[in-house]
Amino acid sequence: MDAYFQPFLDPARLKERYVRLGESLHRTPIMTSQSLNQAAGCSLHFKCENFQRSGAFKMRGVNNALLELSASGLPEAGVVTHSSGNHGQALGWACKELHLPCTVIMPSNAPDFKKRAVALTGAHVIQCTPTLEARIEAVQAHQATHGSVEIHPSNQPPVILGQGSAAWELLETCLEEGTTLDWVGVPVGGGGLLAGTGFAVLVWNLLHGTSVKVFAGEPTGADDAFRSLASGKIEHNENPQTVADGMRTELGTFNFPVIQKTVTAIHCVTDPEILASQLLVAERLKIIVETNCAPPLAAVLKHIDIFAGQQVGIVLSGGNLDLQVHRWGADGLL
Amino acid sequence: MDAYFQPFLDPARLKERYVRLGESLHRTPIMTSQSLNQAAGCSLHFKCENFQRSGAFKMRGVNNALLELSASGLPEAGVVTHSSGNHGQALGWACKELHLPCTVIMPSNAPDFKKRAVALTGAHVIQCTPTLEARIEAVQAHQATHGSVEIHPSNQPPVILGQGSAAWELLETCLEEGTTLDWVGVPVGGGGLLAGTGFAVLVWNLLHGTSVKVFAGEPTGADDAFRSLASGKIEHNENPQTVADGMRTELGTFNFPVIQKTVTAIHCVTDPEILASQLLVAERLKIIVETNCAPPLAAVLKHIDIFAGQQVGIVLSGGNLDLQVHRWGADGLL
Repeated sequence: MDAYFQPFLDPARLKERYVRLGESLHRTPIMTSQSLNQAAGCSLHFKCENFQRSGAFKMRGVNNALLELSASGLPEAGVVTHSSGNHGQALGWACKELHLPCTVIMPSNAPDFKKRAVALTGAHVIQCTPTLEARIEAVQAHQATHGSVEIHPSNQPPVILGQGSAAWELLETCLEEGTTLDWVGVPVGGGGLLAGTGFAVLVWNLLHGTSVKVFAGEPTGADDAFRSLASGKIEHNENPQTVADGMRTELGTFNFPVIQKTVTAIHCVTDPEILASQLLVAERLKIIVETNCAPPLAAVLKHIDIFAGQQVGIVLSGGNLDLQVHRWGADGLL
Repeated sequence: MDAYFQPFLDPARLKERYVRLGESLHRTPIMTSQSLNQAAGCSLHFKCENFQRSGAFKMRGVNNALLELSASGLPEAGVVTHSSGNHGQALGWACKELHLPCTVIMPSNAPDFKKRAVALTGAHVIQCTPTLEARIEAVQAHQATHGSVEIHPSNQPPVILGQGSAAWELLETCLEEGTTLDWVGVPVGGGGLLAGTGFAVLVWNLLHGTSVKVFAGEPTGADDAFRSLASGKIEHNENPQTVADGMRTELGTFNFPVIQKTVTAIHCVTDPEILASQLLVAERLKIIVETNCAPPLAAVLKHIDIFAGQQVGIVLSGGNLDLQVHRWGADGLL
């Protein structure tokens, strides 16, 4: 675990940081549904990050990274990142408020919907060949030429720590309402949200003497995190195939050790299971969640025995869905 | 205005009724969006009845009607109504809790999605020829044969009064947050929500010495309410054509006089305007609202001059949308 995390093992310090971070965020609501509880055989508590600023939890990691940067003075040349969507959008909006230049490298095959959304923030969008290598190269070239600072979407300790604030708020609000969660579940793609959640829950347990556990849902077609946790080293996706477009990425060197230390289980779910869960959330809660949100609920519905009768928190990671293109439900695959 | 309403002109009495009614309802949240405010040139406050029990405001009128009925003992033969959707669903769920028999007459051409939703409540569904005459006849036949009591979807004083509780809560919550609304806007189909809102706002103004005004949005393809308000008598739709399927109905004898007395304006909006507004709400607020919800926002966006700089409350009437069939946005008409 990187040295950055060490001071935040002190619960008072982590809490203080999350309170400060909260000043630039929405305190998103927690939703419940009796009919979803019946379907799942447990009590579900959904932390609605689709209502977060910029429409996704990514605003949390971005704001914490900018908070760290600003301690030593924001870089005049601005920041740069590569992102196919939500992280770029969050960074763009946050930089707009700070009048900080922002460059987002996007793969040329990213959906128009996401390209437009990032451009709308005023960020400078540079398109690149749609490979991970090309993305990394373009970011490095921008740093070398302009002196910009990279804010990585998932593999930087301050980004990881920031993402954990959603789970912390979820645990806090549930406790205020008299509920101690047994589990917190999130989706895993690049691993920033999962590692951040794992770390936050670890510290929460220290503070409260509880034993809340963390799980993730991951698409079977991009199951590098599942395989990495099993083998004990970072595994790769050869040719990731899943409708959850934000999850075609891989774990990183900063988040994997945290995940190893703090996560109980990663459950793989198929595309039809993901789409069915997304539709279920939309129909029962009447909210729009993107496809990337659905794996944790799909995992709960797939493993009724594991979660039976328990209190299960789930972070609904975002709501940036192209409604005019999306085909709802498992039938949409046909 | 029917004698039923008279005692409730006393603000204390109306408030007391709404508090009692609230015990069987969700206190739905109010959502706002900076980007929607920018688009509309005014401050919008959305009362989210898509999060109401049964997914629509209809639960309010139904519960108030059942409250009145229960005062003299609930009828052993149960209740009956005709509805193409949300009212039937609301009545079904409310009766299930009371263990009261419930029969819903549905036109045979109602969407399968809505037939399934009503059947799911445990209500007895009877299909009829898809004309207003056939629906009324079937309700009368059921009453005559079984001794059931009719709960009308929009033209019964207790139903009308109940619907007004959404606007009352909207005004109340805004005031708690320091905002006095200038307008409350709702869609108008059968007229129950509009009349109920008009009545509630009238009494609110008496209580607070304010002059909040009420407006409605109505599809041009089913503009009977607009024409009725202009001519001073109930006008009819010959062959109503609109994507807002819940608004192909007509005003009634109980709600029209209340509307005449309490409503400032009805604005007609086209189907493309309705669909564009529905998509805008979904994209910016990340919530699912049915097509019937969108006319008031469409009216605000059409008449920027009327609402400029003002505080505008809008009741988002429901969220029961068939996501697997719906085509989002004005392009969906093509």
